[in-house]
Amino acid sequence: MKASQFLISTLKEAPADAEVVSHKLMMRAGMIKKLGAGIYSYMPMGLRVVRKVEAIVREEMNRAGAVELAMPVIQPAELWQETGRFEAMGPELLRIKDRHERDYVVQPTSEEVVTDIARQEIKSYKQLPKNFYQIQTKFRDERRPRFGLMRGREFTMKDAYSFDRDQDAAKLSYQVMAKAYRKIFDRFGLVYRAVAADSGAIGGDLSEEFQVIAATGEDAIVYCPGSDYAANMEKAEALAPQSPRAAATQALEKVSTPGMSTCVDVANYLKLPIENSLKTLVVATDERDDKGEIVKSRVWLLLIRGDRSMNEVKVGKIPGLAGFRFATLTEIDEHFGCEPGYLGPVGLKKPLSVVVDREVAVMSDWICGANVADYHLSGVNWGRDLPEPDVIADLRNVVEGDLSPDGKGALAIERGIEIGHVFYLGTKYSRAMNATFLDVNGKPQFMEMGCYGIGITRLPAAAIEQNHDERGIIWPDALAPFTVVLCPISPDRFPDVKAAADKLYAELMEAGVDVILDDRNERPGAMFADWELIGVPHRVTLGDRGLKEGMVEYQHRRDAAATSVPVAEVLGLIQARLKA
Amino acid sequence: MKASQFLISTLKEAPADAEVVSHKLMMRAGMIKKLGAGIYSYMPMGLRVVRKVEAIVREEMNRAGAVELAMPVIQPAELWQETGRFEAMGPELLRIKDRHERDYVVQPTSEEVVTDIARQEIKSYKQLPKNFYQIQTKFRDERRPRFGLMRGREFTMKDAYSFDRDQDAAKLSYQVMAKAYRKIFDRFGLVYRAVAADSGAIGGDLSEEFQVIAATGEDAIVYCPGSDYAANMEKAEALAPQSPRAAATQALEKVSTPGMSTCVDVANYLKLPIENSLKTLVVATDERDDKGEIVKSRVWLLLIRGDRSMNEVKVGKIPGLAGFRFATLTEIDEHFGCEPGYLGPVGLKKPLSVVVDREVAVMSDWICGANVADYHLSGVNWGRDLPEPDVIADLRNVVEGDLSPDGKGALAIERGIEIGHVFYLGTKYSRAMNATFLDVNGKPQFMEMGCYGIGITRLPAAAIEQNHDERGIIWPDALAPFTVVLCPISPDRFPDVKAAADKLYAELMEAGVDVILDDRNERPGAMFADWELIGVPHRVTLGDRGLKEGMVEYQHRRDAAATSVPVAEVLGLIQARLKA
Repeated sequence: MKASQFLISTLKEAPADAEVVSHKLMMRAGMIKKLGAGIYSYMPMGLRVVRKVEAIVREEMNRAGAVELAMPVIQPAELWQETGRFEAMGPELLRIKDRHERDYVVQPTSEEVVTDIARQEIKSYKQLPKNFYQIQTKFRDERRPRFGLMRGREFTMKDAYSFDRDQDAAKLSYQVMAKAYRKIFDRFGLVYRAVAADSGAIGGDLSEEFQVIAATGEDAIVYCPGSDYAANMEKAEALAPQSPRAAATQALEKVSTPGMSTCVDVANYLKLPIENSLKTLVVATDERDDKGEIVKSRVWLLLIRGDRSMNEVKVGKIPGLAGFRFATLTEIDEHFGCEPGYLGPVGLKKPLSVVVDREVAVMSDWICGANVADYHLSGVNWGRDLPEPDVIADLRNVVEGDLSPDGKGALAIERGIEIGHVFYLGTKYSRAMNATFLDVNGKPQFMEMGCYGIGITRLPAAAIEQNHDERGIIWPDALAPFTVVLCPISPDRFPDVKAAADKLYAELMEAGVDVILDDRNERPGAMFADWELIGVPHRVTLGDRGLKEGMVEYQHRRDAAATSVPVAEVLGLIQARLKA
Repeated sequence: MKASQFLISTLKEAPADAEVVSHKLMMRAGMIKKLGAGIYSYMPMGLRVVRKVEAIVREEMNRAGAVELAMPVIQPAELWQETGRFEAMGPELLRIKDRHERDYVVQPTSEEVVTDIARQEIKSYKQLPKNFYQIQTKFRDERRPRFGLMRGREFTMKDAYSFDRDQDAAKLSYQVMAKAYRKIFDRFGLVYRAVAADSGAIGGDLSEEFQVIAATGEDAIVYCPGSDYAANMEKAEALAPQSPRAAATQALEKVSTPGMSTCVDVANYLKLPIENSLKTLVVATDERDDKGEIVKSRVWLLLIRGDRSMNEVKVGKIPGLAGFRFATLTEIDEHFGCEPGYLGPVGLKKPLSVVVDREVAVMSDWICGANVADYHLSGVNWGRDLPEPDVIADLRNVVEGDLSPDGKGALAIERGIEIGHVFYLGTKYSRAMNATFLDVNGKPQFMEMGCYGIGITRLPAAAIEQNHDERGIIWPDALAPFTVVLCPISPDRFPDVKAAADKLYAELMEAGVDVILDDRNERPGAMFADWELIGVPHRVTLGDRGLKEGMVEYQHRRDAAATSVPVAEVLGLIQARLKA
């Protein structure tokens, strides 16, 4: 490609609404253009990156035995009504009426359509396994679209769906995909982690997120430097402390804590370590009748250490606590006879279900609210001041230094950006849509499914969050809009520079290198600034002085300075670096 | 590809709603699957064809200097309001409201968005010319979607838009595209014509449709076998007859034609040739005020020969007749004092504007209505019985045998399917959206635009309409989902067949041939029927008996019978046929 035939359109300043670095740099490098909230045009420079992502994903999906198809962007509501998602999904699902007032949705994913295809196409176990995928436009009507491609409304996703005869086969399909994903993200040249994720109501361990590591990531990733353990915060297990509960050493005491309603305030005020304090969380669950009316509610007391944070996913998985909510002030008053801020498990007005975090179960001499405004209890001990805990569970988010669940060291935490997810679905959709096949015995069985996504247009943004400096983007070779840029200096003044640039360009093109020749006649400073902003990894500068001695300058985007290279060796050098 | 890893899903019968052969065959061959009215999933077999279309289009667009980008499928209404199309377009434009009740459209084309990009990106004449294109999902909410991919609602279009500094440059950009289109359709291996089309209000000749020739085509194409003249019916010019008007030989006579209100009936009844009769068409034009209220109407009389049909596009281009409508009965009575069926230009009650077809202007001794119910006039002659015509124009559709406008022989007519259109837009959109650049003198000028479409997903359907037989599709090499199919006969019983098929498959794959190995263990009859339906052009059958002598059977989809070929020569044979 020659720059004069392309569209190079860089900006000195990022627009005011660009908050994160990838959004800023993609706007400044002319890769995307905003059309509306969360809706972007992919400009020529940006589209080249997207196409490279697509090509690698397609190649590895095909290699893993998945078959590409394309489902419509605009889908009739009927199938979505079959699974109940048409009603159940919130306003994120963009709903449309056509000229005949019939309902449609813009696909956010395609479980319904692909399951409909499978139930029509797959009759027998002999046709299984099958894995269908598409690389297609999706839309999610986010309440607050932001961060450019990171949280847009219209985006491109690769979504794959596997169909299997039984759970074992489904797990195999899942593993094949998980392996393909590793290959894909390896090829992109990104630093990433596959982390265990919550698998929802299905249970089991068959849910992993692929997270690109970046300080600016939205997600906290938990990992063990001494092993391959990695999980997202929702999923990462906090083990029970290894040491047993210490014996009580203090007497129970009611202490005045005027106006001190947080654990931190109380600990500071009492000059006691926060690790000795207890956080009291009051939640409730509702039983509903067929019409969805609440017929009975139950109040629960959850206890975690004062410096910990509750993990809502873990709490929701405790038997009886699925779909829990925070308790109302009335419910709290009914059980504690006190306002929030001074609640505790000792001396309740009315008994309730108590669930105690693993860590809390081994605490002694602790502090908690006295169920009287402006008072706390100190020196509280299980068994002596209140009954031993009934239900002990993992209720909290892990923190740095916690013991790894695999026992192989302490946990560390870093930030990541989710760019892929592999997920075992079970029969959730095949049951809802009656997608069956005949097994070896001729009996109908629900298909076992898995789904596997990659955020095609999010990926370039994640790559930039991980790979940039103050001058701009630094693309990994596999994602760069162009692999090499040739920068001739003043080719209009020096015919030998123009000739050498044209010759090298032809040579690189011939060798299949994805090269762009900057024939715009820009001044060197402006030209270099453009390419550093755009982030092309390999740059060759051709100047009159060097060429007199047969030399040009090579500089990798990460190099601090250029290296003189004989012009005849440029191709070899670049090919060697691309292989490395 | 191996068939067992792919999805081959053929049907004996086409669904009842499939009316045209391409729709039937694409459904039967498992290429598409209907999801809703005019909404299809592209199944793996069909998507391969679509991807081949896309790849060739992309390659030739890039080669022609166009730059690929991608504009959003869902576009905010604001830009569409700028050009007035948000209101002006009918219900074909799918309109959406998002969660915040803001208006959006699903793109049917992208003139507004691309012009918005151009007005932001292009500041100076130095940046021109530019041609941006995308291959993207489009939606048109057709009232009656039908014929499968031929007239679907969701479809993929390649739309390109050129921007130029002046009309001459714009015409050059147009020619570059027209040339690229010929190359594209040549590469597809289709029989097509580029036909002149109406260029709307802009005038000039810069509008051509690319029509795939097929007996089932919706469009009539006019061409001259003796030259390269070709136009669509709307555009094809009917020349004035070459012979001058003959002298009058008959006296004007008022004849009784009871109940005979059509030209055919009258000519038959009077035993006179229909070529002597005249069709009287009464139309009207309205002048409106600023509020759109009609302030004045004008009635026009159009005269064409009795066996001709009116060409509405031509009529609309006559000065004063833009936006014409048919006259009301009141208007007709006011001017003729008679009901339709017996109208004529002689003895009008109230004068009106008369426009006479070129052919009619040279007729003598003709028949027309007498402006009295149940009566006609015969032996009517210009100059003698009524004044010579004022305005003479081309008002009619051409017919087979008409003189070609280039004077190089007689016109012929055939049917076609429109798969591409190149169109000079002028400054229609750049004016509406104030898209200017600074010219050499530093003065702002509106950009001259052109637009260029190819129906990516319609093209396979058109190719099938042109290339099929009673057994199924016959793909041109460039469009086939697979170029070659290997059909081993009973490989489960004959290990040598399986081995030879695997070996040949590996050899063809290695050589870059797009081959599929049918490893499904189907019976030969069913296997052949599948591949003939799917339309893979080259088939190699491997049987135990032939292989004992080192021979396999080669058959092109158009061949009546197979040819014995040494297995060692198969690759060479196929490569030679693919080059030819």
